[in-house]
Amino acid sequence: MQNFTFHNPTKIFFGKGQIKKRVGTETAKYGKKALFVYGQQSVKKNGVYNQVVDALKESGVAFVEWPGVKSNPVLSHVEAGIELACKENVDVILGVGGGSVIDSAKAIAAGVKANHSVWDFFTFAQPVRDALPILAVATVSASASEMNNGTVLTKEDCCHKFGIASPLFQPKVSVLDPTTLFSLDKKYSAYSSIDAIAHMLEAYLNTPVASPVLQDRLHEGLIKTIIESTDIVMKQPDNYEARANIMWSSVVGFNGITTAGMGFSAFPAHMIEHALSALYDIAHGAGLSIVLPAWMSWALENKKERMARFAREVFGVKENDPLQAAREGVGQLKSWFSSLGAPVSLKEANIPADDIAKIAANALNNAQMWKMTNYTKEVISEILTIGQ
Amino acid sequence: MQNFTFHNPTKIFFGKGQIKKRVGTETAKYGKKALFVYGQQSVKKNGVYNQVVDALKESGVAFVEWPGVKSNPVLSHVEAGIELACKENVDVILGVGGGSVIDSAKAIAAGVKANHSVWDFFTFAQPVRDALPILAVATVSASASEMNNGTVLTKEDCCHKFGIASPLFQPKVSVLDPTTLFSLDKKYSAYSSIDAIAHMLEAYLNTPVASPVLQDRLHEGLIKTIIESTDIVMKQPDNYEARANIMWSSVVGFNGITTAGMGFSAFPAHMIEHALSALYDIAHGAGLSIVLPAWMSWALENKKERMARFAREVFGVKENDPLQAAREGVGQLKSWFSSLGAPVSLKEANIPADDIAKIAANALNNAQMWKMTNYTKEVISEILTIGQ
Repeated sequence: MQNFTFHNPTKIFFGKGQIKKRVGTETAKYGKKALFVYGQQSVKKNGVYNQVVDALKESGVAFVEWPGVKSNPVLSHVEAGIELACKENVDVILGVGGGSVIDSAKAIAAGVKANHSVWDFFTFAQPVRDALPILAVATVSASASEMNNGTVLTKEDCCHKFGIASPLFQPKVSVLDPTTLFSLDKKYSAYSSIDAIAHMLEAYLNTPVASPVLQDRLHEGLIKTIIESTDIVMKQPDNYEARANIMWSSVVGFNGITTAGMGFSAFPAHMIEHALSALYDIAHGAGLSIVLPAWMSWALENKKERMARFAREVFGVKENDPLQAAREGVGQLKSWFSSLGAPVSLKEANIPADDIAKIAANALNNAQMWKMTNYTKEVISEILTIGQ
Repeated sequence: MQNFTFHNPTKIFFGKGQIKKRVGTETAKYGKKALFVYGQQSVKKNGVYNQVVDALKESGVAFVEWPGVKSNPVLSHVEAGIELACKENVDVILGVGGGSVIDSAKAIAAGVKANHSVWDFFTFAQPVRDALPILAVATVSASASEMNNGTVLTKEDCCHKFGIASPLFQPKVSVLDPTTLFSLDKKYSAYSSIDAIAHMLEAYLNTPVASPVLQDRLHEGLIKTIIESTDIVMKQPDNYEARANIMWSSVVGFNGITTAGMGFSAFPAHMIEHALSALYDIAHGAGLSIVLPAWMSWALENKKERMARFAREVFGVKENDPLQAAREGVGQLKSWFSSLGAPVSLKEANIPADDIAKIAANALNNAQMWKMTNYTKEVISEILTIGQ
């Protein structure tokens, strides 16, 4: 076990009816006027918008709406949000949506306090020194942004999708009501679960710790639970237990508790996927569904022992030979992604193989930013070729 | 999954060298003068005392020592500590030791701010309204008091051992250095692990949730890890990985993350054990080693499905019949406790069977305090008779 610091002060209210009950009273503890950040129409369709508005009004919290966050949130929208937040003099940011919305809320919260471009945080040109308090209502379960300190943003003109972390990005409070996931369609339910599993699997497979048995067991338990529960929601979108298991597992799996002691894990599939969703209109989970199995196949020999453990513990693979077991595990994961209707090749996502060099060039920026020096353009191209 | 609130803001510094590096700088963030609470001689023998003193001095934190906390900490010592803390005008409490020390530090922190007896908190006569900030250095891994909001205290004259919880008892910072466990003898290493497992197993077996698969998996992973690691430290007391696994597993298993969504679980073995350690000079873990298997045998029929799952997942029991599998699981757990040298009957702890009525009468106070109304004096006697 490596030395670590663990600090996750986000207060979680989980369950049915929590939005109406908590959002107003909790937001009122942090400010008088909120910037209410959300996405497109889904929060209006599923009733979450009304619950939030009612709760804020009941608690006497004034608010300004900032809708329109898209998947893979973009700098220009965040910049306009910062301008609005400053003009309206809001003192708290409330993000209501999936990871894209909550990540945008975080970037706006820090941007309001900065006298430079918010993008400077994402290039590490400036550290995050201050931020408005952030609260979140999660309506998609994937990024765990609702209980971690990360945020990801895309700069459109150069197609760079970068991620950063700061204790100031940790939401003060997050409200998680599994019934908000009922209206999530099959495709996004699948992508969300794939994203949540990818976070865990990247840590699990890339840890520098030789044999992190405790953390392995926690990850395996969470991944198995997400797989089983996702299979249920594919057939029963309003199965509360299954949605609740996914909602809580995705948070526990990426809030720092399961990785504590594992040291710094590189996230190569995320590094490459960020290039895909920076360049194409593809959901992050769909991109991971292509890149993760491709990267696993590429890394098979090198990571055979860990992948074999994954195959045995999660998919019940019986094979004794580590390399063969690892190969079967990758095959099972890929088949499972396919069974959910997620793409497992560039072709299935209508991304031409001719673009591999361009994607690799973009991903290389992420590799350099994240100090993953062994991922050259050639290596990235090789991985993408496996997943073409 | 039941609705829940999860909030655990304790900041953890884990690993070798963390005491010297963190205790001074972190304590200085919360006060200028600390009450340094510790136990008997062990922290002096293992060097932790010196590390703490050096760290406080380096950071310019003044401190008053309050040594002498015993296992199963007592009211009179806490009251004297409160008096000292008030007289010396300390503004922060630092507990350095096992659960007894940290629990005492918590009671003192609240007692300083109260205008009534600190015992009134433990009888629920008064709520905890305020407390000095608490920091902890854990040197025994059992209670997880270093990362939870509970504290347990014994009132000597009436032999009542009561436990309470408050967000104000949550340590601001806890430092966990597995090397501090190297000097823990076999007996206390065993008792600590038994206590940590008992916390998880009581929640696991008594949850009102029908099928908490996610939480089951987390608990099973943690319990298996503690069992394996304890077997290692019995032979190699200075095995860092094993001590680190025990130290972190015992905290993760009782800091609220694994039980979130499981609803309120009664803790019958703890309820009965508190009577044992209130009446006799017996370590809490040794008491649990007697009571937990006895309670499990008593509850076998009623809890057969959950105990069978435990038996299969933790001990690899292959038996199909749930009752038989459950019975084998209890047998395996009891044998494992025995293999560590822990007592598994009252007789082995030199507690006469003739005292069962007296113990049951004492335990009944706990049962009433914790609203466990189905545990009558007769039921408690029956359980103790199984464990006699």
